[in-house]
Amino acid sequence: MTASRVVELEGHIIDSGMMQTAFGILIDMGGSFEVEEFEVGRHKDEESYARLTVMADTEEQLQSIVHELHQNGANPVEPNDAELKPAPSDQVVPTGFYSTTNHPTDIRYEGAWIPVENVEMDCAVIVDTDDGRAYTKVLNAVEEGDMVVTGESGIRVSPPERARDQSGAFGFMQGGISSERPSLSTIQQIGEAIEQTKADGGKVLAVCGPALIHSGAREDLARLIREGYIDMLSAGNGFAVHDLERDLYGTSLGMDTESLDHPREGHKHHIYTISEIIRAGGIEQAVDDGVVESGVMYECVENDAPFVLAGSIRDDGPLPDTITDAIEAQNAIREQAHEADMVLMLSTLLHSVAVGNCLPSTTRVVCVDINPATVTQLVDRGSDQAVGMVTDIGTFVPILAEELLDESGL
Amino acid sequence: MTASRVVELEGHIIDSGMMQTAFGILIDMGGSFEVEEFEVGRHKDEESYARLTVMADTEEQLQSIVHELHQNGANPVEPNDAELKPAPSDQVVPTGFYSTTNHPTDIRYEGAWIPVENVEMDCAVIVDTDDGRAYTKVLNAVEEGDMVVTGESGIRVSPPERARDQSGAFGFMQGGISSERPSLSTIQQIGEAIEQTKADGGKVLAVCGPALIHSGAREDLARLIREGYIDMLSAGNGFAVHDLERDLYGTSLGMDTESLDHPREGHKHHIYTISEIIRAGGIEQAVDDGVVESGVMYECVENDAPFVLAGSIRDDGPLPDTITDAIEAQNAIREQAHEADMVLMLSTLLHSVAVGNCLPSTTRVVCVDINPATVTQLVDRGSDQAVGMVTDIGTFVPILAEELLDESGL
Amino acid sequence: MTASRVVELEGHIIDSGMMQTAFGILIDMGGSFEVEEFEVGRHKDEESYARLTVMADTEEQLQSIVHELHQNGANPVEPNDAELKPAPSDQVVPTGFYSTTNHPTDIRYEGAWIPVENVEMDCAVIVDTDDGRAYTKVLNAVEEGDMVVTGESGIRVSPPERARDQSGAFGFMQGGISSERPSLSTIQQIGEAIEQTKADGGKVLAVCGPALIHSGAREDLARLIREGYIDMLSAGNGFAVHDLERDLYGTSLGMDTESLDHPREGHKHHIYTISEIIRAGGIEQAVDDGVVESGVMYECVENDAPFVLAGSIRDDGPLPDTITDAIEAQNAIREQAHEADMVLMLSTLLHSVAVGNCLPSTTRVVCVDINPATVTQLVDRGSDQAVGMVTDIGTFVPILAEELLDESGL
Amino acid sequence: MTASRVVELEGHIIDSGMMQTAFGILIDMGGSFEVEEFEVGRHKDEESYARLTVMADTEEQLQSIVHELHQNGANPVEPNDAELKPAPSDQVVPTGFYSTTNHPTDIRYEGAWIPVENVEMDCAVIVDTDDGRAYTKVLNAVEEGDMVVTGESGIRVSPPERARDQSGAFGFMQGGISSERPSLSTIQQIGEAIEQTKADGGKVLAVCGPALIHSGAREDLARLIREGYIDMLSAGNGFAVHDLERDLYGTSLGMDTESLDHPREGHKHHIYTISEIIRAGGIEQAVDDGVVESGVMYECVENDAPFVLAGSIRDDGPLPDTITDAIEAQNAIREQAHEADMVLMLSTLLHSVAVGNCLPSTTRVVCVDINPATVTQLVDRGSDQAVGMVTDIGTFVPILAEELLDESGL
Repeated sequence: MTASRVVELEGHIIDSGMMQTAFGILIDMGGSFEVEEFEVGRHKDEESYARLTVMADTEEQLQSIVHELHQNGANPVEPNDAELKPAPSDQVVPTGFYSTTNHPTDIRYEGAWIPVENVEMDCAVIVDTDDGRAYTKVLNAVEEGDMVVTGESGIRVSPPERARDQSGAFGFMQGGISSERPSLSTIQQIGEAIEQTKADGGKVLAVCGPALIHSGAREDLARLIREGYIDMLSAGNGFAVHDLERDLYGTSLGMDTESLDHPREGHKHHIYTISEIIRAGGIEQAVDDGVVESGVMYECVENDAPFVLAGSIRDDGPLPDTITDAIEAQNAIREQAHEADMVLMLSTLLHSVAVGNCLPSTTRVVCVDINPATVTQLVDRGSDQAVGMVTDIGTFVPILAEELLDESGL
Repeated sequence: MTASRVVELEGHIIDSGMMQTAFGILIDMGGSFEVEEFEVGRHKDEESYARLTVMADTEEQLQSIVHELHQNGANPVEPNDAELKPAPSDQVVPTGFYSTTNHPTDIRYEGAWIPVENVEMDCAVIVDTDDGRAYTKVLNAVEEGDMVVTGESGIRVSPPERARDQSGAFGFMQGGISSERPSLSTIQQIGEAIEQTKADGGKVLAVCGPALIHSGAREDLARLIREGYIDMLSAGNGFAVHDLERDLYGTSLGMDTESLDHPREGHKHHIYTISEIIRAGGIEQAVDDGVVESGVMYECVENDAPFVLAGSIRDDGPLPDTITDAIEAQNAIREQAHEADMVLMLSTLLHSVAVGNCLPSTTRVVCVDINPATVTQLVDRGSDQAVGMVTDIGTFVPILAEELLDESGL
Repeated sequence: MTASRVVELEGHIIDSGMMQTAFGILIDMGGSFEVEEFEVGRHKDEESYARLTVMADTEEQLQSIVHELHQNGANPVEPNDAELKPAPSDQVVPTGFYSTTNHPTDIRYEGAWIPVENVEMDCAVIVDTDDGRAYTKVLNAVEEGDMVVTGESGIRVSPPERARDQSGAFGFMQGGISSERPSLSTIQQIGEAIEQTKADGGKVLAVCGPALIHSGAREDLARLIREGYIDMLSAGNGFAVHDLERDLYGTSLGMDTESLDHPREGHKHHIYTISEIIRAGGIEQAVDDGVVESGVMYECVENDAPFVLAGSIRDDGPLPDTITDAIEAQNAIREQAHEADMVLMLSTLLHSVAVGNCLPSTTRVVCVDINPATVTQLVDRGSDQAVGMVTDIGTFVPILAEELLDESGL
Repeated sequence: MTASRVVELEGHIIDSGMMQTAFGILIDMGGSFEVEEFEVGRHKDEESYARLTVMADTEEQLQSIVHELHQNGANPVEPNDAELKPAPSDQVVPTGFYSTTNHPTDIRYEGAWIPVENVEMDCAVIVDTDDGRAYTKVLNAVEEGDMVVTGESGIRVSPPERARDQSGAFGFMQGGISSERPSLSTIQQIGEAIEQTKADGGKVLAVCGPALIHSGAREDLARLIREGYIDMLSAGNGFAVHDLERDLYGTSLGMDTESLDHPREGHKHHIYTISEIIRAGGIEQAVDDGVVESGVMYECVENDAPFVLAGSIRDDGPLPDTITDAIEAQNAIREQAHEADMVLMLSTLLHSVAVGNCLPSTTRVVCVDINPATVTQLVDRGSDQAVGMVTDIGTFVPILAEELLDESGL
């Protein structure tokens, strides 16, 4: 082993799994190491420190190992500046560009560490050499001449620790997916995490699928917006149409959600609803004109809770408020995602993935769906502070609302 | 077409789908028919009547067609007595034995129609020639010399109608499976059906899987037994052990179902629980001795609600109360099933299928599971008065209990 | 009952379930009827005829009943012309507009029946009064002044019959969903239906999700395009990127689909691939320039098989070929859907629903997915000639290709 | 911190996750530690060694920590003998009994380490003090006076490492569940692992559910038994009945698995089949008498492949060969499980869990099911050398058989 470099791991390196991952990379990639120093935090909230000398047979192999260690939070002791190359043309990255994780990241530029703004997964890092800022750009936003971080050096990634115990309002958020956990207690914990987020001045974004309306949870979601527990809404055209149909015709996809009857001609309500909102000029106008008088979209308008309705190829209509261009919709979603401190993903895979793509690993995420595969997919790709619950959205939202609003348990 | 016979259909022949099925059989099997008379009930609750002359090319084909029509409720106008053959030995049926549906069935014996007792699917019909009674026997109960109904004639099957509208406490039970229906309203309707069943003097049987305990619904199920809404319990060894572990150690499979903690050594609680109940001599003794002081099994003992615990090859232990022989367990299940007027199948496939196998098509069935495939399988094979709900048992039971016990909705 | 009207049912009214549905509507809606004539087709391929006098208490109730009967194929004996009203403004329908089914439909205009072109679900019917043509328009295509069919009269709907037996290449397509049916035999039948469609000069559209690439079925799908069994492709941005990544870097989402290894830095291949295709100017140019030399997209280009790539908010990139606007993408999908005689929906819910929305009930549809809920949803809303198969796309496509291309069974 | 003890970790302590787990336990339980020595294996197949001084505030806390470390493979440097207590009565364990993991375990008895025989999860360890042997017993086998291991000391657990790379026939068995992995390549790897197991003189046990027969895989499974790739079979009554029905009547649950037709009266074939086997006196006699001439059960008899048919409360019949008592059936399953070197769990949850309960963590396990939740459940509780595949059993078995028997890939 002729090539070697010293790397450091700092922070909750055991709790975060960083240590284990680093060992694994070294063994997998044929490297070797010696433990130079190993200080273990004595208590749960104390940080640890390890310094390792990493060895490999060739400089190339060493670089490759050190790159992987980087990605997972181990940083060279004596770092160089990050290497910058200009983008050769719009939407084209230079060879060897650095593709981001969703963890907090710093870039070494002119000898100093600067934080990368708006971190999200699979982006390029652009350095604005005029004012010394660094930020992410998705591929389609890259412009010719952008200075793009490439190569291995001058990049520091800090994966957040996973809480190992269950104390604190967010402690349960290490728990992965609860299909065999007590439902009411889990909902109570989610309620407490929302209350804590609000108490800390944070913002809660709800990402909602149409099943929420069909399952009868519309009124309780509307209450949560009205009472300020939910600050922003991300959904699709169908969600809004079903919500508005309930206000205008008392049905959702033609079914009366209280009596469970299917009134004759109810199948037309869906199209009529879109038609009426188009006639009014949009959702806000429809609320202002008194056409729409209740529901989720109504409360968003009345309470200045911003909403993004993203279009899809499944849509009827669409409503005038729906953003039909996927790139424009992603940009609107991205803006909301970056403002959110906590995200509730409520029975929608498509919109949850779109929002999740824009989240840093430090945002708290709660995924609720009746399909365990959906919850698994979202929690696995989501932030490191994600919790999933396999339950019925039609009982989850009412119980959560009762928990938050009525102070009386079931 | 040289062979012909006149058959009649009576009752709710349109609502039950009997008419449609009969037409389908005739066309599929190459038969032909003429409509002799067709009186349609003018109102939902009026019965209809149709008389058809069925024609076929050969007598054999005609018999085959008439057999299928029988199975689906069309009866020959001039029936003969049912044909009886002795069983050649124990557990062996004579060739051409009549295999039952789960619909109410009558047998023509010595010129008179007698009802078949304890109708369930896939059984033989035995006629006791001494006292002129007819009843079903499963294969393993057939004894040498039993007089078994064979062939085509002298059998009358009466499929119940499916309610087409939603009025009445059981009206919603035509609805198949509700995955896109409002959850709270559906649970409310199930609650009303239970109340109506009790008001009519009927018995409610709950068939329960262990997920009910893990999901935190134990206390509310116990309340429903204590308050008399559930009269009988059918479950497996695991369900009872988890319930008793909660009483003895405050955990379920080692997890505290309120704090969601996993106390150290909690994984042994399961085995300890079984060991303690064995030491006490059984569940009833453990309750009587004050070893067990709460929970589902406790309430069953205290309120004389009979329970059947059926063993399976997955079991730890088992408890002394668990019936480890499958045939003995089936017999105990069968007895409960025949007494039940309404069955709640709560998050167990194995036990629900076992109970469902013993039910006539007239028993009301509610299937609740978070897995839509389980609900579909149970509703499809269950009675014609079955309703399925895809939801979380951990929210379903508490909401149902609140509905029934507290008179206050969410 | 003071109001009455005579309606006729013609065709395979028993096999199609039309008769049963009509009886059901009459009873549900409180109407009554007398059977005036009832001629039953004696053989499977003979049509039947029924004439009923429908009675109701009020003219309004009668109209409501007759409307529902219409929707399901029962037509008034003495029809009037369809009523036409102008659309009040763009994307707004007149009150009482007729919302289409996906069944073949005729409109009575100036005393003659004219077929409605491009029938699909939930559209308005526009009559071009200049040249006497009628066609469907989705809501967003409706223009101010369009003459829109409204009300109850002058509309004739003809639901296709469901084949009751299994003979013929498409006979098995009545079978609903096969989760407990023999897999190889079912794939063989699907292969025969494709061969028959091609032999009849029909076109086959494949709608594909990215799981098809991950599961290793890419090469066999490419062969089916090259050999002319698949004429058109409908997919999303992700599908195309995964397919192209496999050509450019030998991986799919970073995994080598043959060795199952995850090469280091493989996670960047996805973004590199998009970047490279953007650099080339698009997929066709990348193929023409020799940048891309194999795979599904390659075969589409080389064999002039038109493809539609519809964007979504989940996309990375996107590729220059991806249509990011949902309305534009729907229009492109609609055009393909209307040309297709058979549609294979292969492990994508989003794109399959979008295509399915544009299909008349006469197009043959095969839905393949490993998730039974996806298959159920697609078959339920799809055409009446839809068959679903719950299986692994990674084994389905290779076995289908072997069936079609190698003439040797497994 | 006043109490301390020195513990050692040996073997693949990084690859196995043992190190990470040990750190986690220490931090969770409020302990502390110093790293005395840390030798890391330089290559994938070299073992590592770590010696830690564990510290706690009280001796009780220290014991509790050391207990958990034990369970996960960290052993005290200076161990004592295991503590033994007699079982107070039949089926009752002494307080503080040691409940086994499924990892290889040694017990220190009279100063020497002796291996525990027949290790499986959740058992008691009994020491035969006459001949110095130690072995597991499930609760129901514990007899009064058995010397049962209790407490914390003298127990050494050795979790097997997880292979981190994919080389070797079993290397892919670290891969967890493959729902997004290439299907044909994965089946090929499973085939190679079976071949390697057979080449090593090992035994393969197939655990089979009835879906295998319905899906048309019966003939290929029969071939694998005939050709010696499968040595033992574990299944339920239903599996055997469906297999035998196919031989006797050409149907499975009444459906012809080749033509996919449902012959009239086919629903009786199931009961007839059981009746005929009862008449013959059992499966072996039915084969010997020429009543049964093909299929899975036939090949088992002809090739002396032992089979266990375990009864359940869902069964019809049952067959004379079916063991209806759950305890007896478990004992038969346990015997097979302990002989197996590789287990194929093919589309049955119930029987797979029962077999899995009896397996040590060193047995290789392959779980195949179309339901991802089933595969997850089996792989999570199974051995550490378990691989899961979410696919269609009806395509899996034929492709596997082609892979193993025909030497020609698809």
